[in-house]
Amino acid sequence: MNSSNLTRIEKDLLGVRDVNNEHYYGIQTLRALENFNLSKSKISDFPNFIKSFAMVKLACATANLELKKLDQNKFDAIQYACQQLIDGHFKEEFPIDMLQGGAGTSTNMNANEVIANIALEHMGHEKGQYQYLHPNNDVNMSQSTNDAYPTAIRLGLLFSLDQLMTPFRELISSLNGKSSEFANIIKMGRTQLQDAVPMTLGQEFAGFATTLQKDLDKINALVPDTFGYVNLGGTAIGTGINTEARYATLATQALSRISKKEIKVAPDLIEATSDMGDFVLLSSLLKRTATKLSKIANDLRLLSSGPRTGIGELNLEPRQPGSSIMPGKVNPVIPEAMNISCFQIITNDLAVTFAAEAGQLQLNAMEPLIAYKLFESIELLSNAMKMFKSKCIDTVSANAEHCKHLVEHSIGIVTALNPYLGYETTTRIAKQALVNNESVIDIVLQENLMSPELLENVISINNMVKPKMSA
Amino acid sequence: MNSSNLTRIEKDLLGVRDVNNEHYYGIQTLRALENFNLSKSKISDFPNFIKSFAMVKLACATANLELKKLDQNKFDAIQYACQQLIDGHFKEEFPIDMLQGGAGTSTNMNANEVIANIALEHMGHEKGQYQYLHPNNDVNMSQSTNDAYPTAIRLGLLFSLDQLMTPFRELISSLNGKSSEFANIIKMGRTQLQDAVPMTLGQEFAGFATTLQKDLDKINALVPDTFGYVNLGGTAIGTGINTEARYATLATQALSRISKKEIKVAPDLIEATSDMGDFVLLSSLLKRTATKLSKIANDLRLLSSGPRTGIGELNLEPRQPGSSIMPGKVNPVIPEAMNISCFQIITNDLAVTFAAEAGQLQLNAMEPLIAYKLFESIELLSNAMKMFKSKCIDTVSANAEHCKHLVEHSIGIVTALNPYLGYETTTRIAKQALVNNESVIDIVLQENLMSPELLENVISINNMVKPKMSA
Amino acid sequence: MNSSNLTRIEKDLLGVRDVNNEHYYGIQTLRALENFNLSKSKISDFPNFIKSFAMVKLACATANLELKKLDQNKFDAIQYACQQLIDGHFKEEFPIDMLQGGAGTSTNMNANEVIANIALEHMGHEKGQYQYLHPNNDVNMSQSTNDAYPTAIRLGLLFSLDQLMTPFRELISSLNGKSSEFANIIKMGRTQLQDAVPMTLGQEFAGFATTLQKDLDKINALVPDTFGYVNLGGTAIGTGINTEARYATLATQALSRISKKEIKVAPDLIEATSDMGDFVLLSSLLKRTATKLSKIANDLRLLSSGPRTGIGELNLEPRQPGSSIMPGKVNPVIPEAMNISCFQIITNDLAVTFAAEAGQLQLNAMEPLIAYKLFESIELLSNAMKMFKSKCIDTVSANAEHCKHLVEHSIGIVTALNPYLGYETTTRIAKQALVNNESVIDIVLQENLMSPELLENVISINNMVKPKMSA
Amino acid sequence: MNSSNLTRIEKDLLGVRDVNNEHYYGIQTLRALENFNLSKSKISDFPNFIKSFAMVKLACATANLELKKLDQNKFDAIQYACQQLIDGHFKEEFPIDMLQGGAGTSTNMNANEVIANIALEHMGHEKGQYQYLHPNNDVNMSQSTNDAYPTAIRLGLLFSLDQLMTPFRELISSLNGKSSEFANIIKMGRTQLQDAVPMTLGQEFAGFATTLQKDLDKINALVPDTFGYVNLGGTAIGTGINTEARYATLATQALSRISKKEIKVAPDLIEATSDMGDFVLLSSLLKRTATKLSKIANDLRLLSSGPRTGIGELNLEPRQPGSSIMPGKVNPVIPEAMNISCFQIITNDLAVTFAAEAGQLQLNAMEPLIAYKLFESIELLSNAMKMFKSKCIDTVSANAEHCKHLVEHSIGIVTALNPYLGYETTTRIAKQALVNNESVIDIVLQENLMSPELLENVISINNMVKPKMSA
Repeated sequence: MNSSNLTRIEKDLLGVRDVNNEHYYGIQTLRALENFNLSKSKISDFPNFIKSFAMVKLACATANLELKKLDQNKFDAIQYACQQLIDGHFKEEFPIDMLQGGAGTSTNMNANEVIANIALEHMGHEKGQYQYLHPNNDVNMSQSTNDAYPTAIRLGLLFSLDQLMTPFRELISSLNGKSSEFANIIKMGRTQLQDAVPMTLGQEFAGFATTLQKDLDKINALVPDTFGYVNLGGTAIGTGINTEARYATLATQALSRISKKEIKVAPDLIEATSDMGDFVLLSSLLKRTATKLSKIANDLRLLSSGPRTGIGELNLEPRQPGSSIMPGKVNPVIPEAMNISCFQIITNDLAVTFAAEAGQLQLNAMEPLIAYKLFESIELLSNAMKMFKSKCIDTVSANAEHCKHLVEHSIGIVTALNPYLGYETTTRIAKQALVNNESVIDIVLQENLMSPELLENVISINNMVKPKMSA
Repeated sequence: MNSSNLTRIEKDLLGVRDVNNEHYYGIQTLRALENFNLSKSKISDFPNFIKSFAMVKLACATANLELKKLDQNKFDAIQYACQQLIDGHFKEEFPIDMLQGGAGTSTNMNANEVIANIALEHMGHEKGQYQYLHPNNDVNMSQSTNDAYPTAIRLGLLFSLDQLMTPFRELISSLNGKSSEFANIIKMGRTQLQDAVPMTLGQEFAGFATTLQKDLDKINALVPDTFGYVNLGGTAIGTGINTEARYATLATQALSRISKKEIKVAPDLIEATSDMGDFVLLSSLLKRTATKLSKIANDLRLLSSGPRTGIGELNLEPRQPGSSIMPGKVNPVIPEAMNISCFQIITNDLAVTFAAEAGQLQLNAMEPLIAYKLFESIELLSNAMKMFKSKCIDTVSANAEHCKHLVEHSIGIVTALNPYLGYETTTRIAKQALVNNESVIDIVLQENLMSPELLENVISINNMVKPKMSA
Repeated sequence: MNSSNLTRIEKDLLGVRDVNNEHYYGIQTLRALENFNLSKSKISDFPNFIKSFAMVKLACATANLELKKLDQNKFDAIQYACQQLIDGHFKEEFPIDMLQGGAGTSTNMNANEVIANIALEHMGHEKGQYQYLHPNNDVNMSQSTNDAYPTAIRLGLLFSLDQLMTPFRELISSLNGKSSEFANIIKMGRTQLQDAVPMTLGQEFAGFATTLQKDLDKINALVPDTFGYVNLGGTAIGTGINTEARYATLATQALSRISKKEIKVAPDLIEATSDMGDFVLLSSLLKRTATKLSKIANDLRLLSSGPRTGIGELNLEPRQPGSSIMPGKVNPVIPEAMNISCFQIITNDLAVTFAAEAGQLQLNAMEPLIAYKLFESIELLSNAMKMFKSKCIDTVSANAEHCKHLVEHSIGIVTALNPYLGYETTTRIAKQALVNNESVIDIVLQENLMSPELLENVISINNMVKPKMSA
Repeated sequence: MNSSNLTRIEKDLLGVRDVNNEHYYGIQTLRALENFNLSKSKISDFPNFIKSFAMVKLACATANLELKKLDQNKFDAIQYACQQLIDGHFKEEFPIDMLQGGAGTSTNMNANEVIANIALEHMGHEKGQYQYLHPNNDVNMSQSTNDAYPTAIRLGLLFSLDQLMTPFRELISSLNGKSSEFANIIKMGRTQLQDAVPMTLGQEFAGFATTLQKDLDKINALVPDTFGYVNLGGTAIGTGINTEARYATLATQALSRISKKEIKVAPDLIEATSDMGDFVLLSSLLKRTATKLSKIANDLRLLSSGPRTGIGELNLEPRQPGSSIMPGKVNPVIPEAMNISCFQIITNDLAVTFAAEAGQLQLNAMEPLIAYKLFESIELLSNAMKMFKSKCIDTVSANAEHCKHLVEHSIGIVTALNPYLGYETTTRIAKQALVNNESVIDIVLQENLMSPELLENVISINNMVKPKMSA
């Protein structure tokens, strides 16, 4: 300890350094702060990651206690410190850049140092008196960055995914609500931006809900199975060097209890230490959802285009004036912000892919980028879904009369006559209607191709928006 | 029919055209050939796609027969024609570019026309005599491109995935075989390209096998569930216009019987018609495997670097002279070709993503790109796996003596002393060994830090490559 | 030579092999054929690449002749053989997969072997009698794959870019023609899919032409400067081992004469041998053009949406029936095919990026992927531009009346009143017009906010589509 | 003004809102804050953007003054306010998320509001008393978001690029310094990770410097030409509605004077308003540099692999302890952080591409994402280059003896014998040396293939690392 109380001296492999005594982090965190000054994103921006890291440390300490590698006194102090982090305190003690080299060692040592110093004070010692409790020997006991770090990422992502579930479900629910509300609004279906055949607006919104529900289900089906397997106990490269044989199981069981998640030991710890495949899969699932949300946002922008020279089937509630020069203009800013968010998520998937491909031999040094981008994507998706639901979907309304008018004046209803008149006749009618600006109905009646009764029945809305009842 | 036998006259919405009478395809295929002259890839390059399309057409005809919409005579002819395609004939009648506009209409009409004309000849008529059997009214009855086409893609991809399974399994098996062969070869594990701790070469190859096995399992778990749901019966936009209520179920059941795959009706046909999410997921899974294979290829190139100035732990069997100027040089051409193949597959995933995001309203007009890239990726992955196994993995050998020598002269074994001497002491030893070019073992013994017996036990290979047995 | 004339025996570093005597390629090509069976794309699909390779070989032979390393007799034979390839013969002798490992060695040896055997026959010898003219010692003299291959790629890309220029210019010209044709068609400008202010359709098409012209100019400005510098003479790693000091200059000068392109020696041959930056730049430029073309295609699809329930300002000439079920439906298949082509080109840029990043030390082993994707992108862009011009732009027509009607009934003209009435008053008018379905003009006149004369002047079309003339 | 001084009432198209009177921003900024809560990046994180926006506003006010549209009093106040922003004050008044919908309207209105309120206070009024100076009518006079916003982005990027130049140049300079320092260190060149031919370490580092210098030159050559053309004066869609004919030129000239950058009016303002091609080009150039830096970082990690079981030619100065479990381990954390930064930049290019492709008709609504990603990439590149230079390149050292030893024991020197002994003989020697673990030199001498003098001369280092002097 420095004579002054302002700083303390810490040492590591590279030498000694003064550490500001206000900080619970130590010399290795300090070095990382100096080394990496790249982005504006810090570990402290991702509380789930700090929380999961603390749980991993506590689980390992529990296993070490059971194996009598760690005495009760030290364990109690570590437990206290981890609980502080789990409760959301000391976030500001994790100031390192999320863009970092070192495969996560800086983050792991940041956690080790903060936990050690909280624990030391709890034991009645001062920060830095590592002879009583050591960041490496005690807090990191039986661990390597290479198993503790990916385990914490996996657990942290599970927590983040938990937080995604509510906005995800609520967005689907809002879409389903609109589907009911719009159940009787008849509108033109369009394929390739050309008039196709009628449908209800309720069917359209139900489709939006269904496609997101499928993603929600897929994430829920895949993620626990995938992310529940961790390489804890593998230590440096998955061989489990410096652990007892029972350690991996004990630590993993402790982690399950602490986190209330089902966590299991990965069957091949060598593989589990270097492989990033599960992160690639999660990123892909987020990307999949992003492509769907972007498509939905595009549809809403298209259907609400106008007010007078576009399609104009939907009204999005105004959220802000749309122009600094064009009075009265209102733009679909919420769907646009959804598009932009989706592009960011899609793009993050490429970062994860690049990082995953760049693994070498027993480790992937690019893991910090993967952690960063996945935490970012989940949080962004969560925020974007909340915005989309509350500021757009909940308040979208339909121009029912206009929708109906478009259907009635379209040529697309000729499709329904196909089974009665054949493809060639109906093609001729469609062409004639378009060229002469006539009505399909008028042509059929004029040419006595169908009786008025049959025609009316065939092109009744109810018969056009679903399969025919069997005779 | 034209007076000459060389051409026949066909007509469509746009007018009439002469079609070379040699061809079974008709006017709409001809127009597509003229419209799209973009890439060198043709539908005929993907036989599984033609086969699956024929099965879809046969399934629909079966449902139409059961519903008494199609008479037995026409059905028999359509069945004959579809079976011809299923058996692999008439491939050259599918000459349209895989890069095509029209959301698959050209491909669907190509199938309708070829089937109609084969059927017509089978019925004793001539090609083009569509009054007896019509491509649209009969072959395409109760269908739209918008349900038949994605259904055929899904089924075709299932067939292609079936063909991927054998090379996938055999590659894993080859890696597992090498894992056994290399079980006793001790080598240095490396993290971040720096010497870490020892492992066996068998463990390393087992990791390769494990990581691929996880992908194989994931594909097998996800794909049937995902791709088994089709939108057949949804027709133009998923509303099922122009179908009977029972049709979708009948057609899907028929398709299951014909294809011997479990095919079910998608619960929301509107959604199923426009959504590309399942293709995005499959593409992501292929990408995931590609990132893993590329990483494995990189590892093999790294471990076989040399012969004299690299790492030199592995020998890849020479496959071709490596240089036009450097005599004796042999390069790792097979892993390099694997890298390149993986980059192509990873890249194809972006194409699928762009296409999926670009869907609008009731359809995704970019579906042909998705089909093309997925068929291409699966076939490329299959070819690359075959190559990798037979020309690289099967014959890779180890420089066991060199591997052992590297371990024995490394500093990394100091890690094993950590639990006995503590992080700070071992750090000092490691530093001293490196700076003075000394041996870790010598330093420990000179300083009497551990007894020779304990030291020998701790750094025995068996104790370093796995967790310690409990006391 | 084998006793039979059917095969000849060739040997290389790995041993001997029978080569079918019909083929001009030799043992190393044969090995590559066996090694790489990945894609359907062959070197023979890219004639510019073969042509440029032959020119490189001829240029090197010329330099070797001048330096008296190669005798006149051998030179004459090599010259003859190269000229054969330059003239487009023997393409089928380049059957190797474009997806290949080996950093291009297979392609280089393919060229060396084919040239040697053509030359041998020209000298009166038989194929394979390499004692008279050797693929490595003579054809490849003073070269390595590592300088000859990238030089040939650069030159081949220059030839491909030459071929791109005509469709590029003609597409721009067609757009400019339409701009003139549509000069007096007033239409609504739209931002964020919402009605903005008026413009002419001619202005819109002029914008399309301008944006492509900028790309054409950028390519023409950047490419010669970038691609004209080659690493010929660098041999294996850029140090120029096994060359005379004057060789690089002589070979490059010869290549300039033969190719009629200005080719210079790169200032740093070490750098030039491994760096892929120029290819990344070219790929980026192609991607830039692709994003623009895709945007234009999207605009055309949007503006031609309808015919009755969309925007309907433009008519695209029908190219093929649009549906197998919906009679009369016509889709914008050409713009769709353009979108798909653009996605492929954008995607290829990612492949080039992955490959470029994967270079290691003195070479980039992924160069074959870069060559493949760039040749593919240029050819695809060329084909897509031809298609877009001749099958879409040339024949696009406008619904002038409808365009005008939309402007006259829009609220957007209120913007022109802004300088006279202020943002707050015009905002109120806009709101009132929208809510009450009134006309902006009527409100202004009713409220006596402007004189009829001033109002008429301000909202006259000519005054709205350009800046005001100064007072 | 509200009776209390705590808030003031502002109104816009959507109604009235209380605005905290502490803030200079107004109601539209407030709405944007409520609408967009997506990422952690705010406008205030990018001071160059605020500065350039203020310059644009000042330039427009200057033009309006000259055209007598704005009185001197208002101009003076606007000028004062803009200068405050240019000087870096009031940054915290720009709190809107960089991920925003609305095509930049929120950012533009944020600037208009802050400038108006600073100006109002300067005039002796209170915030919100817009009757004296209006955000839209006065500050935004003759402007639209659609011209002011992209102009500000372009100018802001020019400022950011200026700041990139110093670290860019210093990194190159550091590499050139190392090239000189390592000029006489002979080492093995490697292609495809296999031993090739000798070179100097100085040549290798010179290559690094050259390849970055080419990018620096390319950016400097392209950027002014590209980014100097702005669409100021185009207003809403490029037609210049609500401007005087001379306005665009006046505003642009004023902007040149204020910014000390050469700014010109884009020739086609319609095109310039919606096109994102210049941003795509800049992003591509940044990506190009990122691929190069990532490759260099990979090379450094490879060449410094070890310390005992890798290539070990270079030593990177230790920056932090490399492991929480492996004592003494030091990792190449700085090159790793460079890789990760490069992946982020490469990835940002995809975001720019997606956004650029998504433009529609007269505007690109995704422009905020483009601005965000470009500012981020330039800043990240700048930070990463500083880090790379000061914490890695400046202090890298070579293991000269080891490098030399590797060359002397390699087989690769056999290449130098090629011109004397021919490809087939040297191939045999190389093979024999490898198989029997012999020296190439010994074999040549034993077999009397060359005289000792000639051999010594040919394989002298100086003769191997450059072309031969002509006889």
